[in-house]
Amino acid sequence: MSTRFSRRCFLSATIATAAATTASAMPMPRGKVTIVHHVFFWLKEPGNAEHVQLLQQGLRTLASIPQVKQLLVGVPASTEKREVVDNSYQVSELMYFDSLEDQAAYQEHAVHKAFVEKYSHLWQRVVVYDMLVE
Amino acid sequence: MSTRFSRRCFLSATIATAAATTASAMPMPRGKVTIVHHVFFWLKEPGNAEHVQLLQQGLRTLASIPQVKQLLVGVPASTEKREVVDNSYQVSELMYFDSLEDQAAYQEHAVHKAFVEKYSHLWQRVVVYDMLVE
Repeated sequence: MSTRFSRRCFLSATIATAAATTASAMPMPRGKVTIVHHVFFWLKEPGNAEHVQLLQQGLRTLASIPQVKQLLVGVPASTEKREVVDNSYQVSELMYFDSLEDQAAYQEHAVHKAFVEKYSHLWQRVVVYDMLVE
Repeated sequence: MSTRFSRRCFLSATIATAAATTASAMPMPRGKVTIVHHVFFWLKEPGNAEHVQLLQQGLRTLASIPQVKQLLVGVPASTEKREVVDNSYQVSELMYFDSLEDQAAYQEHAVHKAFVEKYSHLWQRVVVYDMLVE
């Protein structure tokens, strides 16, 4: 574990900072706000694996936007099918922002606008949840 | 920045590992699976601030379950009101698991069952999204 830990210390300060704001093992820093931005996409062609792949590729371009502190791109997990679980979407992205201002700047960023222009023909429905963690 | 970074290196290995699996700035470790478990709660009394507080307290008890790698508890962020944004929920929790098995074990864990028993009278609706990130 110590070797692994030493290696982790070479992670960028950005990543380490993100960890500090999201980990349950330590209290959230005072006054630090984290915005979690979770988006779910329902495709026009849900069974089209190429479209699923293409949208994921497009979403990964959003990592270059400086305000995006973390980016996870995924698909529904094959957890137990329970009534409360919505696994009807095809692709999802999860991002962290440091502030509401950063989230607003992201919406207007050229890379985000280019993503919407290039890939929005793939989806029929989008649901966004923005969560404030203090 | 260097001082800040050094301080971050004292974070636990668990936190650093979690950062490595979720950060966009580096590739995901090969063969490493992350399950994101995001739950949204709509309360029976949406305007009852005490209930909002109480549910958040209850959710924080789930951090003691060993399979839960990260836990974030929050409320809707006051981001721009757009048609695609669902801000109608009152409380949300976001967790990470290392595997589908860990997620299943969490569902059956006594602390999780106690949480449901003690707090489920507060909510009228729950929606769960489980996301697989590879």
